[in-house]
Amino acid sequence: MVLHTVANSADRPSRAGVAAATGLTRATVSALVDDLVAGGLLAEVAPPPRTGAGRPAVGLALNAAGPAGLGLEINVDYLAACVVDLTGAVRQRWVEHADQRPADPAQSLAALGGLAARARLAAEADGLTVAGAAIAVPGLVAGGGLVRVAPNLGWQDVDAAAALSAVPELAGLPVTVDNEANLAALGELRATGGGPTANFFPSDIEQRGAGSPDGSGSDRPGRVEKSSFLYVSGEVGIGAGLVLDGELYRGVRGWSGEIGHMTVFPDGRPCRCGASGCLEQYAGQEALDDDVPLAAAALGIALSAVVNLLDVPVIVLGGAYAPVFAPLRDGIETELRRRVLTAGLAPVALRPAALGADAAMRGAADTVIRAVREDPAAWLRRGA
Amino acid sequence: MVLHTVANSADRPSRAGVAAATGLTRATVSALVDDLVAGGLLAEVAPPPRTGAGRPAVGLALNAAGPAGLGLEINVDYLAACVVDLTGAVRQRWVEHADQRPADPAQSLAALGGLAARARLAAEADGLTVAGAAIAVPGLVAGGGLVRVAPNLGWQDVDAAAALSAVPELAGLPVTVDNEANLAALGELRATGGGPTANFFPSDIEQRGAGSPDGSGSDRPGRVEKSSFLYVSGEVGIGAGLVLDGELYRGVRGWSGEIGHMTVFPDGRPCRCGASGCLEQYAGQEALDDDVPLAAAALGIALSAVVNLLDVPVIVLGGAYAPVFAPLRDGIETELRRRVLTAGLAPVALRPAALGADAAMRGAADTVIRAVREDPAAWLRRGA
Repeated sequence: MVLHTVANSADRPSRAGVAAATGLTRATVSALVDDLVAGGLLAEVAPPPRTGAGRPAVGLALNAAGPAGLGLEINVDYLAACVVDLTGAVRQRWVEHADQRPADPAQSLAALGGLAARARLAAEADGLTVAGAAIAVPGLVAGGGLVRVAPNLGWQDVDAAAALSAVPELAGLPVTVDNEANLAALGELRATGGGPTANFFPSDIEQRGAGSPDGSGSDRPGRVEKSSFLYVSGEVGIGAGLVLDGELYRGVRGWSGEIGHMTVFPDGRPCRCGASGCLEQYAGQEALDDDVPLAAAALGIALSAVVNLLDVPVIVLGGAYAPVFAPLRDGIETELRRRVLTAGLAPVALRPAALGADAAMRGAADTVIRAVREDPAAWLRRGA
Repeated sequence: MVLHTVANSADRPSRAGVAAATGLTRATVSALVDDLVAGGLLAEVAPPPRTGAGRPAVGLALNAAGPAGLGLEINVDYLAACVVDLTGAVRQRWVEHADQRPADPAQSLAALGGLAARARLAAEADGLTVAGAAIAVPGLVAGGGLVRVAPNLGWQDVDAAAALSAVPELAGLPVTVDNEANLAALGELRATGGGPTANFFPSDIEQRGAGSPDGSGSDRPGRVEKSSFLYVSGEVGIGAGLVLDGELYRGVRGWSGEIGHMTVFPDGRPCRCGASGCLEQYAGQEALDDDVPLAAAALGIALSAVVNLLDVPVIVLGGAYAPVFAPLRDGIETELRRRVLTAGLAPVALRPAALGADAAMRGAADTVIRAVREDPAAWLRRGA
């Protein structure tokens, strides 16, 4: 509660300010703040500007030199890593462009492990303590870090978490694995208009930022509206993360969002998955490079189906789509206007991803930070 | 709590049994039961069979002669009404086959009002008190009972609730309006293996009945698993009701489930909505009558997209599909196997609607009954 209050303050509140905001006594707040400062979660900083009389109190802020999250991404044509500190700031960022398809899973994971080791060392040289790592993969992930299928990597039943945990430089680090589009959607959900530290806790998510119809932020402060949007991640494959009422919808088995295999032309191009006419064959990275208008039309057909089915008001285009948003937009909107039954009643907003191509690794790092922020007591015990 | 306990008892519990189940005192339970009996919600019945000594106590059951729900449906080629009592039993049922397309909205609503008036009078002759009416319509419904668009009826901005409320025989009856596929999905959700009265309260919905993967009911009594399924309502148009984790997902504006306008063949047949290649043109009632294999393939393509997007494990076919389920099944499953990315990892179950073509009007009547059962105090005050 104390951490939450500091994190969501626009200012740098004093202990007394936190006590007033939480209803806890000053003595309790002071004791908790002392623990959080000792555990590296809060920092004592210059006091906020004030108008009253008396000696200014010490201000409190999230500690930018405390625990950090290591976000990793393995995709078909690149590997990436970033380190995000407790305030949400990106402190390290690496992207290695290299086609992973000729590599076997062990080779790709060894390369990712090397990148992760470098990122952790650099973060620690920077005064941070990496609290955990999360890996974004373009595939279906089962519990326990097992990648069941990643069609475009040619992976099947690959234990990515175990491979990373075995890297000596990553010893002792908890490692999780999740679908890249899901992580990107989470990253996008948290990259709200209030800045990376605002609305971090699920109960506070407001309808603004990428998920808000006008993107301008709520005009009624304190009003909690939960955003719903589809995040579409364009890579060699295409994935999607579906946020309904402020929560990522994973599906019954965790395999939602496989929009790359929605059929757009039933008798069309053969797909690696065995079907024909999949969206991926018309709007995946390679098709996109060949023919933007066709990619846009195919996306428009598939996205119209999503809106007809789910009545989502916002679609966010990320990954490889973010940098070519403008040329895609018209073609997609033409199809949406034509094919969405309610297009005349309520328009669908189309936006580029706020985090650009970094959304998945940022979302991955955020899951680590979020876990620390949601259960600081666990972090303090761990440090003890 | 008392009503809930009686409703969910397999037996006819005594006052003492209700006290034991709820933890309330016998005196409190007796006072509440007296109110519920006086208000027509509970009935005193023969005691349950018992093995102990002593005089058998009076049993309690939901009152089959108490408040009832009037479910109404207006569809392209029929009007329907049913009366469902507090125990979930259907007490009256009428279906009038008549093409509504040549009629204007006022004519259709006048005919539906006539049917509703007859149903109410018959229910009251049968000792029931109709507590309210709900109308199922094949279209987009806004708040307050306004039908924004019902493409296949040719309706636009029709206040169906006001029209029914104006019928003299329906005076004083609260009337609501909802999309027919949403109501059918709710009806299907509640038509669980435990019979129509079981699991009526949202917190108790278990994964069984239509929404359970094996349809056989939970093998672990008391285990609460929330079902997820897509209910597809095949009429002249095609609608869907999406149940995620035991709750109907309505979409941000209440317009989810417009699967009839998902594109299956982008350059295909023109649709009344202005687009081309909509599912409705290949698998709506009229197309179904012409060519079942084509309808099945088109449904399979659209449903594969739904499963790829949402990872729903169960699809329920209702309306006009229920009676031709067998001939549709193979064609749909062929497409699902081919086009669902996770088909090899976890199969999708396809089932006919448990309530057949009556699901929408049953679901409509259920919403009335449910409101009474969830807030019996409001009903008792109303009777006073």
